Amino acid sequence: MITLKGIKASAGIAIAKAYRLEELVLKTEKREIEDKELEIQRFKDAIMKAKNDLKEIKEHTQQKLGADKADIFAAHLLVLEDPELLNSVEQKIINEGLNAEFATQEIVDMFVSMFESMENEYMKERATDIRDVTKRVIAHLLGVHVPNPSMINEEVVIVAEDLTPSDTAQLNRQYVKGFVTNIGGSTSHSAIMARSMEIPAVVGTKGVMNHVDNGSIIIIDGLDGKVIIDPHPDIMKEFEKKKIAYESQKIEWKRLVNLRTVSADGYPIELAANIGTPEDIQSVLENGGEGIGLYRSEFLYMGREQLPTEEEQFTAYKTVLECMEGKPVVVRTLDIGGDKELPYLNFPKEMNPFLGFRAIRLCLEEQEMFRTQLRALLRASVYGNLKIMFPMIATIEEFRQAKAILSEEKEKLQSLGTAVSESIEVGMMVEIPASAMMADLFAKETDFFSIGTNDLVQYMMAADRMNESVSYLYQPYHPAILRLINNVIEAAHKEGKWVGMCGEMAGDPLAIPLLLALGLDEFSMSATSILPARSQIQHLSREEAIGYKEKILAMSTSEEVVNFVKEQFLLTKYKG
Amino acid sequence: MITLKGIKASAGIAIAKAYRLEELVLKTEKREIEDKELEIQRFKDAIMKAKNDLKEIKEHTQQKLGADKADIFAAHLLVLEDPELLNSVEQKIINEGLNAEFATQEIVDMFVSMFESMENEYMKERATDIRDVTKRVIAHLLGVHVPNPSMINEEVVIVAEDLTPSDTAQLNRQYVKGFVTNIGGSTSHSAIMARSMEIPAVVGTKGVMNHVDNGSIIIIDGLDGKVIIDPHPDIMKEFEKKKIAYESQKIEWKRLVNLRTVSADGYPIELAANIGTPEDIQSVLENGGEGIGLYRSEFLYMGREQLPTEEEQFTAYKTVLECMEGKPVVVRTLDIGGDKELPYLNFPKEMNPFLGFRAIRLCLEEQEMFRTQLRALLRASVYGNLKIMFPMIATIEEFRQAKAILSEEKEKLQSLGTAVSESIEVGMMVEIPASAMMADLFAKETDFFSIGTNDLVQYMMAADRMNESVSYLYQPYHPAILRLINNVIEAAHKEGKWVGMCGEMAGDPLAIPLLLALGLDEFSMSATSILPARSQIQHLSREEAIGYKEKILAMSTSEEVVNFVKEQFLLTKYKG
Repeated sequence: MITLKGIKASAGIAIAKAYRLEELVLKTEKREIEDKELEIQRFKDAIMKAKNDLKEIKEHTQQKLGADKADIFAAHLLVLEDPELLNSVEQKIINEGLNAEFATQEIVDMFVSMFESMENEYMKERATDIRDVTKRVIAHLLGVHVPNPSMINEEVVIVAEDLTPSDTAQLNRQYVKGFVTNIGGSTSHSAIMARSMEIPAVVGTKGVMNHVDNGSIIIIDGLDGKVIIDPHPDIMKEFEKKKIAYESQKIEWKRLVNLRTVSADGYPIELAANIGTPEDIQSVLENGGEGIGLYRSEFLYMGREQLPTEEEQFTAYKTVLECMEGKPVVVRTLDIGGDKELPYLNFPKEMNPFLGFRAIRLCLEEQEMFRTQLRALLRASVYGNLKIMFPMIATIEEFRQAKAILSEEKEKLQSLGTAVSESIEVGMMVEIPASAMMADLFAKETDFFSIGTNDLVQYMMAADRMNESVSYLYQPYHPAILRLINNVIEAAHKEGKWVGMCGEMAGDPLAIPLLLALGLDEFSMSATSILPARSQIQHLSREEAIGYKEKILAMSTSEEVVNFVKEQFLLTKYKG
Repeated sequence: MITLKGIKASAGIAIAKAYRLEELVLKTEKREIEDKELEIQRFKDAIMKAKNDLKEIKEHTQQKLGADKADIFAAHLLVLEDPELLNSVEQKIINEGLNAEFATQEIVDMFVSMFESMENEYMKERATDIRDVTKRVIAHLLGVHVPNPSMINEEVVIVAEDLTPSDTAQLNRQYVKGFVTNIGGSTSHSAIMARSMEIPAVVGTKGVMNHVDNGSIIIIDGLDGKVIIDPHPDIMKEFEKKKIAYESQKIEWKRLVNLRTVSADGYPIELAANIGTPEDIQSVLENGGEGIGLYRSEFLYMGREQLPTEEEQFTAYKTVLECMEGKPVVVRTLDIGGDKELPYLNFPKEMNPFLGFRAIRLCLEEQEMFRTQLRALLRASVYGNLKIMFPMIATIEEFRQAKAILSEEKEKLQSLGTAVSESIEVGMMVEIPASAMMADLFAKETDFFSIGTNDLVQYMMAADRMNESVSYLYQPYHPAILRLINNVIEAAHKEGKWVGMCGEMAGDPLAIPLLLALGLDEFSMSATSILPARSQIQHLSREEAIGYKEKILAMSTSEEVVNFVKEQFLLTKYKG
């Protein structure tokens, strides 16, 4: 038995035989050919065969996974119709008298290295597409059989270095029970595909391909990011039980998509989602998100070579607001600097970037950049229910200054006749201990708070959570954190303001009962956490949770809190 | 008029003509000599003359500045008696037939570069001494007149690149009114000398030597670290007033050395000092310190090549305890890591060292090192009134673990028959927001708290005070900080425990009224701040200050607090 840790890419448990999906290694030898016409015909035939394969895969995907997933293959088909690519290969065959497979490889290498050298993420992805598609063409030219995982006819877990979109699309849903890969992160193609296929996946295991043979029994635990090869019988039993428990939960969750979130004692709670780009909206809707609690606008600024224009930003904000059809959308203004760098803004290296020049500090200094973002937001505000919040507010002066700049831009737009919503709520992140301490005074000037626990916990405990030596001190359930959160919520409610939370903590089943006890109004989390959270809250009485508040706040350690939650809420209420 | 900023090295105001004390540049040319005997005689004569100079300076110093300052020159005299140095020069003259000045220079360069290459701070200082002393020998050999600032016969301010101990010792106290130097920091020789001579000094101005001519009028403001060259008449008047005000204050302060600190309404307050080494004790006693509020034990570990032994530590702690004659001495256990590195402990570079693996975190991991320090402290405890505190406590588990280790070492020592005091108080630094929030629970388990504002403010505001871009957020008077301090003091007093403060804030005249209002029991500061603080507290009514507490804690900005203190306490009470 071997146990490997990886990155959880898609929830669930799979237990099945391993199917090694190995990359096709194709060797193209350089040959001089006599009959150039014939060679071009060979090339055209190969293109045609590849197209037929792709059409078949596309159709299959459309039936099994829906039109949008099949679009990937429509894009792949376009590669095979790209005249620049096709003509370049044909020219190379004619001018240099080379065999078609070698000519194709040379031209593809040229195109790929051109796209890969670009800073643009979209172009880099195109490079992967081209390599993926043309490999199939070369295989046909070489007469090599392209392995066809769609022929799989028993239950398997796919084990691979990485999975390409066409690999995953060909897989027969009926038999493929999960993925494990060596490389990739939680936003890699294979991870996204696995989530949309709703099969468990663990990626980035590094060594899985070295440890597993075809046909070995393998367990994938997509809930904990674990892979077990050749499990002992008792381990098998344990995971079989875990699998059944998870699957019955999943059935329950799916029934909740169109419901509002209400606690067992009838109190409504808002479950919103954190997103980075407009593309994330679909998953929010599919998972029954009641709003966007955190739109991380910095993604608009990343992976590019200069600042996004006001128009680009406007389009993105408008899209999100329209897709959410009047549901609340909280946009956080640019939270960059520190560890999140923009290469085109030249800021000096800092000794302690987490305590450095970032977010609102930078925006109040680089006002032109900030005002551009605010104008785009104001213009988009008429397309939905926009709320704006400022990150890393430490002092009331900063908050006042940011609000004043927003008002100035609003007045300027209105004086030019541009429509701006009159009901935009303006709030702030609470992620710096000082502002949490001053919540009573901030509450008089803000429309809402959104607690950012990721940073707040770091500063409260003086421990960088990225630093392995001190990550044990990153304790979100620590009573000191709960007391501070309580202070923020009490202060806000006294002034009739609402409080959200958009850190990892908000979607954590261990934290949810605590946050309910503290009176949190809005929980914003990854889209896929929403349904489990809704289900959990349905089983929790808010009144009862509040009854434990004083007891919890008087605890002295994180361990005490966690044990209490497990005993009081998870075992007897949630699981029981 | 030119104004320069520098580092305040010694308090006070001086206004006088500038006297440029320039370094003697000596050129030693290489010559072959005929009569080696004669050359050795020349060398011996020069040594004799240099010795006579030094004896004269030493005597002069002893009369004017006391025996301990004169010791520097006793050490210099020893250099001129070092057989290794003298023999090496004589051998070089004999073996290579070189002139004495060149031979001296060569040997000195060799010795100096050898000492300088050592990591040891003591050895590096010896290099400076050797260079300083032998320059005088070479000057005598060259027949060059060594300038004699003791001949100054009018009031001057000395302007120099840097000042050597012998430079400063020769200065006639009657006429020398202050120092300004290009280089050096607040712990450089010139700074220490200026403080002991009680004349104002500003060091590290970088450019002063480029801006000032002999005889120009110059103002040194050692209170604010400012230097003004050729001041306008109105500026002159302003500083003449400031000088008179400061001098009358100083006279008042000196009268307070042997008094206890008592507020205007008769409430006793403890004013203690922060020290780094046993050598700092003298200044503490001269300035009427009522105890040591912070002994930074890490200085024992710095500037060396391996950990200090238990014996070395024991001797240092014993010395401090004995010198303080039963007054409280709070020793902070090793606060190293993060930005304070020990080259002989190899820790990985951290992304955010201020949020990293340091202080108690490191000690609980490197227990052998920690236990050695605790044993040294326990053994020293019988020589005075020792209190021990642990730095960077974030969780109650850490505090319990540190105390448990201390108890274990105590029992081990006692079982071996070693005497250990039974009345050692064991406390903790409060410098992490989480532990300040949890003060009520910590107060049940600690004997005292010492608030470390330098770090606490950084974490509360999420701003690295060393980072110029965000140093404006380092706001010790911010109401969020005051609220947190209030929380700590109230929690401690409820359990009958005392609270000290050992950050920069404790000695700050703007903060003292605030800390009095919050009920702080012990203020620990630089020794030279003690008398001004005692004087200030004598003029403040603690009851009245406490009456303003709620008002202050309800303020929303640092600026509001500062203005209130200035109006309410500094203008009407203290200065008025």
